[in-house]
Amino acid sequence: MTERAVCVIGTGLIGGSLMRAAEKAGRAVWGTSASEDTAAEARADGFDVTTDTDDALRRAADADALVVLAVPLPVLPEVLRRVDAVAPEVRLTDAVSVKVAVADAVARYAPRARYVGGHPMAGTSESGWSAGLAELFVDAAWVVAADDGLDLDVWRDVAELAWACGARVVPAAADEHDLAVARVSHLPHLLAAVLAAVGAGGDDALPLALAAGSFADGTRVAGTRPELVLAMCEGNRDALLGAVDDALGRLGAMRGALASTGGLTATVFAGHAGRERWAASRDPKGVKVSLKGRAPLAALRAVGRRGAVVSGWKA
Amino acid sequence: MTERAVCVIGTGLIGGSLMRAAEKAGRAVWGTSASEDTAAEARADGFDVTTDTDDALRRAADADALVVLAVPLPVLPEVLRRVDAVAPEVRLTDAVSVKVAVADAVARYAPRARYVGGHPMAGTSESGWSAGLAELFVDAAWVVAADDGLDLDVWRDVAELAWACGARVVPAAADEHDLAVARVSHLPHLLAAVLAAVGAGGDDALPLALAAGSFADGTRVAGTRPELVLAMCEGNRDALLGAVDDALGRLGAMRGALASTGGLTATVFAGHAGRERWAASRDPKGVKVSLKGRAPLAALRAVGRRGAVVSGWKA
Repeated sequence: MTERAVCVIGTGLIGGSLMRAAEKAGRAVWGTSASEDTAAEARADGFDVTTDTDDALRRAADADALVVLAVPLPVLPEVLRRVDAVAPEVRLTDAVSVKVAVADAVARYAPRARYVGGHPMAGTSESGWSAGLAELFVDAAWVVAADDGLDLDVWRDVAELAWACGARVVPAAADEHDLAVARVSHLPHLLAAVLAAVGAGGDDALPLALAAGSFADGTRVAGTRPELVLAMCEGNRDALLGAVDDALGRLGAMRGALASTGGLTATVFAGHAGRERWAASRDPKGVKVSLKGRAPLAALRAVGRRGAVVSGWKA
Repeated sequence: MTERAVCVIGTGLIGGSLMRAAEKAGRAVWGTSASEDTAAEARADGFDVTTDTDDALRRAADADALVVLAVPLPVLPEVLRRVDAVAPEVRLTDAVSVKVAVADAVARYAPRARYVGGHPMAGTSESGWSAGLAELFVDAAWVVAADDGLDLDVWRDVAELAWACGARVVPAAADEHDLAVARVSHLPHLLAAVLAAVGAGGDDALPLALAAGSFADGTRVAGTRPELVLAMCEGNRDALLGAVDDALGRLGAMRGALASTGGLTATVFAGHAGRERWAASRDPKGVKVSLKGRAPLAALRAVGRRGAVVSGWKA
């Protein structure tokens, strides 16, 4: 197993946690921040962080390191142009919350990079270097894109980095990932926002005064910084429209049943069954895979589709 | 301050917790259960519980006790007929999650009872006598109905029972209560059900495998026993329709914005503001009130409407 060095571009909550986790796992790791203050803060914590992206990328090319892009989607083109200029064939992954848009940007701005998309499904309501935690990814799902044509050697690098951080490797095609997170990550943020607005939208303060556990839990993620929610959800527009339409359809059918028969049985039992299915999915089966043989990427995608995770390599 | 005795009809999670809390506060307390097994279980825990509702009600009339109805809405008519037969002018309150429907049932089946509605906003996902906790109501809102024409002496009894249980007294008209809980308690259950169904509704297991914190919190109450959710929500149909329509309107407007401009700013910022308003409402102002003077019930309703709680009596 290669203990490949890691170069992290962007040292916010995700990038900063990744640097801490990779270092703890014994990897050589360096990074860059767009902010001199953040870089100084990270150096004060003992990490090798500068603002010189070109230099960091050159070191990555020289060391054959894995570069991880942990910057917001809107900043990607600028960073990818530097990759193409300085380290055009570098091993490249990312930690951005959508996968099709990132793959498109890489194809356009750094087409020679050996890119395999990634998405560690972890976070807190905090942000910035100081919020980072070496343990952030422990037992979290870490999606590794498994579209045809990817570099299998880099696929191995990304999976091994995820394992080094304590995460579970979930292979998925980029578009399947985007559809899935629209349902289970982006839609929850939008429903939480709608619920919070309805609860706070009355003419007086009585509803909020009576709001207890169900409202507190149902609106928790509405407390996230709006800019982060917007970047995440708006970057997944097409997939999100489908998820919103599904929710609208179910809510509309429920409204009709409530108005006509007064009955909510179908809605409430379907929701209960869904929650039970989620609870039953919390301890996924780990399978060992091979990156050799015929169509290894199709086999990887099948692992993710059946709710399992990749736990190691076949001997 | 009267240490009025308490007679609890129904000893499930709420009634059973109420008996424990009232006893801990030094009140004389007895109760009834429809189930001989439950009554035996409660007696084994040292509580005075039988299955003889008539006898318990007669004792309440003799002792001028406060009777608390803690049975599901569908069982109320049967219990209220016994009240009218055995203890027709008794001091009466309840702990049911809707208020207009209960007031209507009392007017119909036990019109002479001195009734003041109540609703302690507390619960867990458990049910039954054994799930009861003396601390269940600590710091919870306990709505005390404040419609014109109520018996102010019984209003005092109900408020003092709520305080004895550690709760915060929130006065509200029955219809205002029902509208408020539709928004902040019943709608959260329905949105959780819709979200759980959307998350579990895909063709494969990938979405649930990627579901993390936002989905877990947003669907938590979908794990509640469906029968309890149905009784609660279906019993508040008219108010709930308005809350569902508000949510549908906001979700539809958001869908339109996402499809046309791709922007979610209005939705996300309104949700964030709502959650902040909720957070700011967690430490309500306590005011002392008088039950004398002109229009004391109108003054009480105004306390609840501005998000305050009744914390004691004016000297």
